[in-house]
Amino acid sequence: MATRSLFLLPGDGIGPEAMAEVRKIIAHMNDKEAAGFSTDEGLVGGSAYDAHGQAISDADMEKAMAADAVLFGAVGGPKWDSVPYEVRPEAGLLRLRKDMELFANLRPAICYPALANSSSLKQDVIEGLDILIVRELTGGVYFGEPKEIIDLGNGQKRGIDTQVYDTYEIDRIAAVAFELARTRRNEVCSMEKRNVMKSGVLWNEVVTATHKDRFSDVKLSHMLADAGGMQLVRWPKQFDVIVTDNLFGDMLSDIAAMLTGSLGMLPSASLGAPDANTGKRKALYEPVHGSAPDIAGQGIANPIAMIASFAMCLRYSFNMVAEADRLEAAIAAVLDKGLRTGDIMSDGCRKITTAEMGDAILASY
Amino acid sequence: MATRSLFLLPGDGIGPEAMAEVRKIIAHMNDKEAAGFSTDEGLVGGSAYDAHGQAISDADMEKAMAADAVLFGAVGGPKWDSVPYEVRPEAGLLRLRKDMELFANLRPAICYPALANSSSLKQDVIEGLDILIVRELTGGVYFGEPKEIIDLGNGQKRGIDTQVYDTYEIDRIAAVAFELARTRRNEVCSMEKRNVMKSGVLWNEVVTATHKDRFSDVKLSHMLADAGGMQLVRWPKQFDVIVTDNLFGDMLSDIAAMLTGSLGMLPSASLGAPDANTGKRKALYEPVHGSAPDIAGQGIANPIAMIASFAMCLRYSFNMVAEADRLEAAIAAVLDKGLRTGDIMSDGCRKITTAEMGDAILASY
Ligand SMILES: CC(C)[C@H](C(=O)O)[C@@H](O)C(=O)O
Ligand SMILES: CC(C)[C@H](C(=O)O)[C@@H](O)C(=O)O
Repeated sequence: MATRSLFLLPGDGIGPEAMAEVRKIIAHMNDKEAAGFSTDEGLVGGSAYDAHGQAISDADMEKAMAADAVLFGAVGGPKWDSVPYEVRPEAGLLRLRKDMELFANLRPAICYPALANSSSLKQDVIEGLDILIVRELTGGVYFGEPKEIIDLGNGQKRGIDTQVYDTYEIDRIAAVAFELARTRRNEVCSMEKRNVMKSGVLWNEVVTATHKDRFSDVKLSHMLADAGGMQLVRWPKQFDVIVTDNLFGDMLSDIAAMLTGSLGMLPSASLGAPDANTGKRKALYEPVHGSAPDIAGQGIANPIAMIASFAMCLRYSFNMVAEADRLEAAIAAVLDKGLRTGDIMSDGCRKITTAEMGDAILASY
Repeated sequence: MATRSLFLLPGDGIGPEAMAEVRKIIAHMNDKEAAGFSTDEGLVGGSAYDAHGQAISDADMEKAMAADAVLFGAVGGPKWDSVPYEVRPEAGLLRLRKDMELFANLRPAICYPALANSSSLKQDVIEGLDILIVRELTGGVYFGEPKEIIDLGNGQKRGIDTQVYDTYEIDRIAAVAFELARTRRNEVCSMEKRNVMKSGVLWNEVVTATHKDRFSDVKLSHMLADAGGMQLVRWPKQFDVIVTDNLFGDMLSDIAAMLTGSLGMLPSASLGAPDANTGKRKALYEPVHGSAPDIAGQGIANPIAMIASFAMCLRYSFNMVAEADRLEAAIAAVLDKGLRTGDIMSDGCRKITTAEMGDAILASY
């Protein structure tokens, strides 16, 4: 059978430790299921900067572009806090997103039953939570020009960023949200600040038109992004799919992740458009958590978000739905058994290491 | 004694009902304490649009500029959802903020002991919460140019907003945050997205410099705004004063408000710079909640946020600290007695109307 090529970018901090557990699963699937994964590995973020002064090298970018899927760990840490803006660790991730045209960022926020009590929110508010944030990832204020600091003289500088959205960018991310909603509870809530932003006015207009033209079977609602943030905190279960822009998506998906009380558990997928000939989408999978430099290298990080990201990879890049389901069920089973890394530890559970968690999930797979 | 001039802009929805309760307090203070308030009233938002096709008239703007303080209710509602962008209800509020140069928006998020159980967050997470969000209010993406929708032809449009911050704008809002921190727990956390935005890089740089030059006695920390949103949900009591830009402040202050479970309780103050001669600041006080059109006109809205906004007015515009303290204590006392409007109703409490709540607070004052 054809090779399935994976390009691994473990990155900084706890990235490599978490990625090591995914490697075990890949090896197992190759050995026992003839899954035919080929893997190659590169550098991104601070570790790439240390090696060659760039947040990602051109050679690694080429490998990322050529792979069927990229698995990404995390980037950043205090060590690189004062490197120049253009080569800061995040620049590697942003370049991957932009050059691979990964415009659709899927961030599920689910509450694992075994962890329903570990949130700062009341148990009834988050029990059974299952929402999906669809965030636009290649536009908006992240990439708009001008983006600069101008020296005005007299000790004054001016910092400028530009929020830009074109119709086609809004239409294609809305379409992804509507399509995914059809596989779920069939509801989309679109969030912007049309009362203040012209890009919000356009966003609202285009989402409404896309809905009317091609997805009128899906239930659509609109909410101002600030009100949306409040409603996420008040009663998140009112939502199914939320579609929003790059910056609001950054804020709202992090808040949604924190609601579940299990930041170390949440995966994400960043997808491009289907290729006109092959139908294949470029894709990158990464945990929502960051590089957590404070606990890096101790073998205590939670590898679940990284493993769950690989499950998303199986599902979206390789259509290996049964395997993805089994891997996600294995995660839930291990949690049900009371096995916990330190970040999700609670009374009556058994505290285990990163490697033990990876092994336990593999054993349940 | 000199007259203290108040300009009242009740606005739309529940604004007028809430403002009526503040009128009672003003009348009482004039009668019993010779407070010498003079009041005038104008139109803003949808009601101003209905009257004369503008979200606020020039005549009312002049009165707002001339008053010692403006009391603002709320604007907006479905009735005006499709009026032109330039005259939408929010435009009245934004013009007030911009023309009065109200750059400093103070949004306290406190948890009233009597309501510690009404949040979606666990009681121990929010009990005793007392944080202050200092939001920049006249800059950033709210007002930067270009701000427009361009027709690109071929069915494509482009929506553009511009985030702009100059050194002096960041310095003056940081100074307000540091000064207020000195009257509290002496800690400021500054939030931006310097890993993505150049305005965030400048924000971080200027706040750091202002701190070093003039406020090095205050403890300063920095957080990325997305992480800040998460930390607000996880453990809000880690913060004292948060300083952030206009758009992040909009999101973060609404989330902070929702944490307390008492959106109908939270006031805000928007202040200008002290006048070079008189030392007086232009000021506008408004509840954080919106116009709540669904319950407007029924006499059931919670007037506490509006009354608490008037308490902030007493404190910041008239230095009537004893009166402000007494009014805030009256609010807490009424809650302790178990009196509740519908929005904060819970078992064992007595449900009362807007007017009854106003009367009860006045009786406790
Ligand atoms: C690391 C950073 C550039 C990134 C972002 O802001 O998009 C992160 O916060 C995320 O949400 O993936
Ligand atoms: C009404 C709206 C323009 C306003 C804002 O976005 O600033 C509101 O949300 C607020 O926070 O005061």
